[in-house]
Amino acid sequence: MRQLLRRLTYLRVPRLMSALRKRWLILRHPHVDIRFDGPVQIGPGFTLFAPEGGALHVGPYVEFRRDFVAELHGGTLTIGGGTVFTYGAVVQCSSRIDIGARCVVAHAVTIVDGNHRFRDPDVPVLAQGYDLRPITIGDDATLLAKATIIADVGARAVVGANAVVTKPVPPFTVAAGAPARVIEELRRPSPA
Amino acid sequence: MRQLLRRLTYLRVPRLMSALRKRWLILRHPHVDIRFDGPVQIGPGFTLFAPEGGALHVGPYVEFRRDFVAELHGGTLTIGGGTVFTYGAVVQCSSRIDIGARCVVAHAVTIVDGNHRFRDPDVPVLAQGYDLRPITIGDDATLLAKATIIADVGARAVVGANAVVTKPVPPFTVAAGAPARVIEELRRPSPA
Amino acid sequence: MRQLLRRLTYLRVPRLMSALRKRWLILRHPHVDIRFDGPVQIGPGFTLFAPEGGALHVGPYVEFRRDFVAELHGGTLTIGGGTVFTYGAVVQCSSRIDIGARCVVAHAVTIVDGNHRFRDPDVPVLAQGYDLRPITIGDDATLLAKATIIADVGARAVVGANAVVTKPVPPFTVAAGAPARVIEELRRPSPA
Repeated sequence: MRQLLRRLTYLRVPRLMSALRKRWLILRHPHVDIRFDGPVQIGPGFTLFAPEGGALHVGPYVEFRRDFVAELHGGTLTIGGGTVFTYGAVVQCSSRIDIGARCVVAHAVTIVDGNHRFRDPDVPVLAQGYDLRPITIGDDATLLAKATIIADVGARAVVGANAVVTKPVPPFTVAAGAPARVIEELRRPSPA
Repeated sequence: MRQLLRRLTYLRVPRLMSALRKRWLILRHPHVDIRFDGPVQIGPGFTLFAPEGGALHVGPYVEFRRDFVAELHGGTLTIGGGTVFTYGAVVQCSSRIDIGARCVVAHAVTIVDGNHRFRDPDVPVLAQGYDLRPITIGDDATLLAKATIIADVGARAVVGANAVVTKPVPPFTVAAGAPARVIEELRRPSPA
Repeated sequence: MRQLLRRLTYLRVPRLMSALRKRWLILRHPHVDIRFDGPVQIGPGFTLFAPEGGALHVGPYVEFRRDFVAELHGGTLTIGGGTVFTYGAVVQCSSRIDIGARCVVAHAVTIVDGNHRFRDPDVPVLAQGYDLRPITIGDDATLLAKATIIADVGARAVVGANAVVTKPVPPFTVAAGAPARVIEELRRPSPA
């Protein structure tokens, strides 16, 4: 009985809800190019906001645990297989954001491919538009809780909690702080 | 068909839901002075918590995208026209918070007009109350993702991601860091 | 009439919903050792994710305002009486996390008892597991908005907004920054 309930709670019901959310998502956004290349776990609170359209391509076994938000303003967001979004991550994409495979995107991480323009004093900020900068997050990157990402992060890099990435983080490094700086170099894989 | 669905998804349904949330909000909080001076977009998860009453005045065309929380402890919160709250912002107001017009309040920003008192070692923190400091956010200010605001922000100022504003930020500046410091002066409008 | 509505909105309805959420929680997680030692306020969005089981012990008069997430990977999470979680806190527990009595855990605080291992370049990060470090938060500690806690915090200590606690914070101190450093010593209670 307990085993049955557990299986219901952690396997059957989430899988069923995820499948329903997926259908609902596709139904409501016919003008968005949505592709799921395999099974994907879409948790509660998954939000897509794409009034002007855009593209969302998600690899197999990606997991969106809860309250993931993707805001597309005509942009293309791709997510590699096996990547996990835990709670409350927000991705705002007006040009292109590519997130690699097997990444960890932790609690309340923000990834944005543009800054509000604000330097023209004679035009309201909201009317000045954005400076766009497409973003690539490499495979196996780890973005810890509340990091804010507005530049590239290399493969296997680790971005510390509450860090703000304003300049590219090289692969195989640990970066922390606001603005984020490299604080450690990681060992590279041994040549096979 | 696609155009119709898109219009339903991005215009009709949100507008209808927003109107229902507005009515529900006013119905449930008869002891709070709630005023909407024009059309306002109230997204899912909008939360008002005001057990002791208070006032909430919202200008025209304000947008609360998702999971906005206002906690009033008898305080007055005013929001100028055209301001946008994206995702998960929290405003806790015990005295007075005035947010200007056309501001951007990004992902998980916190705005609080008081600090917990914690310096009396003989009284539990939760029983020591607050030091209150009314807060004014100027027109066209931009508060980037996860900034925490416990002091004034001037008009047209930009507060960087993950910054903590503990002292007033002057108008027409960019401030970043924790505690936030001015890192750039912006050009002022040319005299007309 | 207004008084009645107010009492319904702020007392009756939340209490009823909280009781229903509690029952639902216990029903759905028969393999988790869940204990509530007295009345507890469980707000909307309360989430427990414990696929491998674990234990959750909550003292009397604890308040989970909204969108609290506890992720147990076989770990034990205890929360002392009177502690308040405001909005969107996330606790991820694989070994043991003890949170004291009368603590304040503010907006989007993250508490984690382990780091992802990431130093083996030949194994994917998600397959390297965690370095576990049980965490204790002392009584009357205050964790301000968006703090990230991956080490102990002493009794009566205050952790500043957006701080990252990577080394233990002693009791009766104020710590801020990323990584967090002590910026003030607080007076100790007078001997009785």
